[in-house]
Amino acid sequence: VGSDNIAALKIEAAAQALTSVRSGMTLGLGTGSTAREFVRLLGEKLMTGELSGISAVCTSIVTQTQAESLGIPILQPDSKPSIDLAVDGADEIDPDLRLIKGLGGALLREKIVEQASRRFIVIADESKLVARLGRGRLPVEVVRFASPWIEERLRDAGLDPVLRTRDGVPFLSDEGNWILDIRIPPDRDIADVVSDLGRHAGVVETGFFPREATEALVAATGGVRRFVRPA
Amino acid sequence: VGSDNIAALKIEAAAQALTSVRSGMTLGLGTGSTAREFVRLLGEKLMTGELSGISAVCTSIVTQTQAESLGIPILQPDSKPSIDLAVDGADEIDPDLRLIKGLGGALLREKIVEQASRRFIVIADESKLVARLGRGRLPVEVVRFASPWIEERLRDAGLDPVLRTRDGVPFLSDEGNWILDIRIPPDRDIADVVSDLGRHAGVVETGFFPREATEALVAATGGVRRFVRPA
Repeated sequence: VGSDNIAALKIEAAAQALTSVRSGMTLGLGTGSTAREFVRLLGEKLMTGELSGISAVCTSIVTQTQAESLGIPILQPDSKPSIDLAVDGADEIDPDLRLIKGLGGALLREKIVEQASRRFIVIADESKLVARLGRGRLPVEVVRFASPWIEERLRDAGLDPVLRTRDGVPFLSDEGNWILDIRIPPDRDIADVVSDLGRHAGVVETGFFPREATEALVAATGGVRRFVRPA
Repeated sequence: VGSDNIAALKIEAAAQALTSVRSGMTLGLGTGSTAREFVRLLGEKLMTGELSGISAVCTSIVTQTQAESLGIPILQPDSKPSIDLAVDGADEIDPDLRLIKGLGGALLREKIVEQASRRFIVIADESKLVARLGRGRLPVEVVRFASPWIEERLRDAGLDPVLRTRDGVPFLSDEGNWILDIRIPPDRDIADVVSDLGRHAGVVETGFFPREATEALVAATGGVRRFVRPA
């Protein structure tokens, strides 16, 4: 599957998610290359008048900028919006609809918005399906003040933390934190690793989303498959 | 016990903790009225030359300002200092040396520093001893972006969250977060409540310190009692 084809699959999954959007809904808008396609297509439907009365909570400053450019009304959390539907991508999806997210660095606001949503559709191309989470690294968002000590402890725990950088300096999340990308050892369960991480003061959030997704739309060359979390 | 007497007891506990400090140590300096007495007495010992070669990591900007005014060399976390001993107050201390901290709003950096310390002495007057934690409120530090949703969920859970304010606006922690002060229901165990809180994205830390303290020095009118955590 070439990268052109993957780009086309992302659009297919995004278009399929759009069929769940109704006029008047409050949406949660994700972050990343697949979510960007969803926001773009949403803007088109609003432009043509096929959809109206939509408002949205954004999971990153990047997405908010895109949504504003398309004229989508933005809600801030202080109005405590009730979110009907969130749509976002993922880096890895396992058979139980557990996810790894956060390669784009927006994991904290993504998880906040997706937990506040009645329904959360993950959109992805089939390359994101894994039998077991941890093929790639798991992002761990940490308070800067705590980062040096936490990095040392995670190294001692065999998790091989790498401080994420951009242009040679530590990558700063929208919330002003740093990100340590860790590796899940093959002999350990990701849920246990994440549970242990929670014991370290200064770990704000991880990219492990165990129960947020209610369904997934996964585009393959044969079409879009829909997975639903058992009730 | 009057407030003058309580002030005197805080000084007694702080003075007793100072007897554990040796020249050359790296210290973690707490925040609050009792920790302030410890820092003040430490400054005196450095001034007289009874102690030397001390450096310190501070748990708040307030404490750092005090320490700097006393000429105590300050270490930042980026040098990943190995901390020999932390000394800090607490709002509640139970018989297992579990603590509630954070009325001063410094709970996050306090927990980070105290977890990074080989030894952590809690100093307090006897009014802080409780049979069961939760006499007062438990501070929960939350990401501002998540606060409205979390506040609603904690209210639904019967925890009576109150957004902490100062001068009529939300109190901002040193890390730029807000604090929700919750009440532990009498029929619930604080450890269970805190464990549930960890499921909400945007909860950064709580003022429950279950295992950080290695000993406590508690001043009463009859003298200072020392409690040690069982190995």
